Amino acid sequence: MSVITLLTDFGLKDVYIGVMKGVILNINPEAKIVDITHEVRPQDIKEAAFLLKTAYQFFPKSTIHVIVVDPGVGSARRPILAVTEDYLFVAPDNGVLELVYQNEKTKVYHLNNPHYFLPKISTTFHGRDIFAPIAAYLSLGVKPETLGKEINDYIRIDWPKPIKEVDCLKGEIIYIDRFGNLISNISRKIFDKYIGNKSFSIHFKNITLKQIASHYLAVSPGEILALWDSSDYLEIAQSLGNAKESLKANIGEKIEIYF
Amino acid sequence: MSVITLLTDFGLKDVYIGVMKGVILNINPEAKIVDITHEVRPQDIKEAAFLLKTAYQFFPKSTIHVIVVDPGVGSARRPILAVTEDYLFVAPDNGVLELVYQNEKTKVYHLNNPHYFLPKISTTFHGRDIFAPIAAYLSLGVKPETLGKEINDYIRIDWPKPIKEVDCLKGEIIYIDRFGNLISNISRKIFDKYIGNKSFSIHFKNITLKQIASHYLAVSPGEILALWDSSDYLEIAQSLGNAKESLKANIGEKIEIYF
Amino acid sequence: MSVITLLTDFGLKDVYIGVMKGVILNINPEAKIVDITHEVRPQDIKEAAFLLKTAYQFFPKSTIHVIVVDPGVGSARRPILAVTEDYLFVAPDNGVLELVYQNEKTKVYHLNNPHYFLPKISTTFHGRDIFAPIAAYLSLGVKPETLGKEINDYIRIDWPKPIKEVDCLKGEIIYIDRFGNLISNISRKIFDKYIGNKSFSIHFKNITLKQIASHYLAVSPGEILALWDSSDYLEIAQSLGNAKESLKANIGEKIEIYF
Repeated sequence: MSVITLLTDFGLKDVYIGVMKGVILNINPEAKIVDITHEVRPQDIKEAAFLLKTAYQFFPKSTIHVIVVDPGVGSARRPILAVTEDYLFVAPDNGVLELVYQNEKTKVYHLNNPHYFLPKISTTFHGRDIFAPIAAYLSLGVKPETLGKEINDYIRIDWPKPIKEVDCLKGEIIYIDRFGNLISNISRKIFDKYIGNKSFSIHFKNITLKQIASHYLAVSPGEILALWDSSDYLEIAQSLGNAKESLKANIGEKIEIYF
Repeated sequence: MSVITLLTDFGLKDVYIGVMKGVILNINPEAKIVDITHEVRPQDIKEAAFLLKTAYQFFPKSTIHVIVVDPGVGSARRPILAVTEDYLFVAPDNGVLELVYQNEKTKVYHLNNPHYFLPKISTTFHGRDIFAPIAAYLSLGVKPETLGKEINDYIRIDWPKPIKEVDCLKGEIIYIDRFGNLISNISRKIFDKYIGNKSFSIHFKNITLKQIASHYLAVSPGEILALWDSSDYLEIAQSLGNAKESLKANIGEKIEIYF
Repeated sequence: MSVITLLTDFGLKDVYIGVMKGVILNINPEAKIVDITHEVRPQDIKEAAFLLKTAYQFFPKSTIHVIVVDPGVGSARRPILAVTEDYLFVAPDNGVLELVYQNEKTKVYHLNNPHYFLPKISTTFHGRDIFAPIAAYLSLGVKPETLGKEINDYIRIDWPKPIKEVDCLKGEIIYIDRFGNLISNISRKIFDKYIGNKSFSIHFKNITLKQIASHYLAVSPGEILALWDSSDYLEIAQSLGNAKESLKANIGEKIEIYF
């Protein structure tokens, strides 16, 4: 029994997600559908790419991940299927799978066999008309080759990477979670590579931090701290508080670690 | 295995939806429960009726749709079951099924057999005490006749229909989705009937549009466009933007198509 | 087949809940997962305790309830399992199970067998690394004794109880739901015990109410009323309105019933 996950910017106010689930169950009544999130910022492809990266590997092998953040719906942008060793990804060809491409050996197919779409295709809701039915047929065992043709010219997007200078590692905030935790693009791996056990100071806005805390309550309530988030990215947080609000912080703001 | 869907104004902050699911699974552990939406505007029966219409047909045959938008909970308003060729609808008798009645041949039952309710009935939460257990028993195969008595005097409500004048089709905005897309009550069918291939101009607030776009990116970013939404209603949208915010638009505002 | 419920303050914007479900399904693909709510106010242990109490008993016997409101994540606070006659509760040891302890005969285990955790434990997301896998293993039939050691020194917290004076019952608002209904800690049981059929007057802010209404529409639209909520607590509401907004009411505000 395959799991199908949904990651979209559709929100939960409308019926769009419910309808996608209806379409899936109509094709495969045994499908097990899991929501990853539907609160991606509308049309923010990079946020979706980041969230997908932090989630997809925790699902069982053969899970079919459906990602619909799709400002180009109805235009010539292609619907695609990306196949990695363990997972399948169904999405528009707009870069939302960038971090899958960076992490995994991937085969990509252009989904161009309308036999596996709904009979009538709207120009505004391919989540319902294309992506949901494709996922359902995949969960029934239909092969990628049957659904489309392998391609190599799928869209790649620039991804903000940390910059290493002589005495400094420069990154930026790439995601802010519900608690106001500020998640940067500086991974533990890159930190360990360039800084390791050297002494360092983290600069973010007007804050300077000299160490990485072990957990939120390792500092006094209200204090700002740095720690490794659950995906091993450097996170700026406030103990028992909301760092985004306290620091008036935003996505894209720079973080520098001098060492 | 039956699918049970839930469409309510309960929101997701409280435990109400979780509790309804617990009640259902307690009666039928095999039930497959799908959320359509729980973010109907509190007590907005018309919005629920519209959302239901855009969703119910995408589910497998025999799906049991449970709709709980119920300002009269605890009063004399009746709980009902509506049976159409393909679906079952469990709801309060307050008009929330109006568009089902308009689209389908329907038999309606007054749910008056307390044997299929929870033992103790509150006056504030019939979603838990009546609608959820009824849906669960239906999914186990209990017959409508067992659950209540057929009635003909169920509540119908006025539904805003577009008005055809000599040279003009007049409608109104009936729903605004998460993206700020403004969905009118002018269907493609009625447009084709009265306007078809004639030239036309759509007037909405201070905007005039001379054509219906094929998709959101068919016009420049930021531009206002009209297009057919995923349920074939005329929609006013903004390319890569939010029409509701840009136009300060609201439900009930008029849209006119001169031809 | 066991049901696993999730009750957290993680919200739905992030991928945290989706990831927990992935971890569970990876261990037990047959698990049936139900969301109770994820919109507990961040780090509000008392709100979570109250919401859990109003929900857990509606689920099938043997349901595994997972509660993650966990400001102390990563610190020395223990992960625990509480076992009652009908249910299992997996949570941090911070008082979030207080009302379970008050209502049920409970055995509590310190979850200290890392064999049943994820291989790598973060300091910020034990929902994923500890609570989700523990719930999944329980759903597979792993015994509490295998997962940890029974303890008696689990954390209890103060719970605001109504106060009985000579001619007055004093309580407070402990929860406000999505509709702005104000739910107090005065239960029907305590009301019946001390007031019963005596005449009384309820005082809340500048409002005085002389009776308890049978349902929301028993008074005129816009009128403030008192009624028994769906869990039999005294609730202050506004007919077809939002009492929280109309009365500018907040959690913790006092309600007094003179008799």
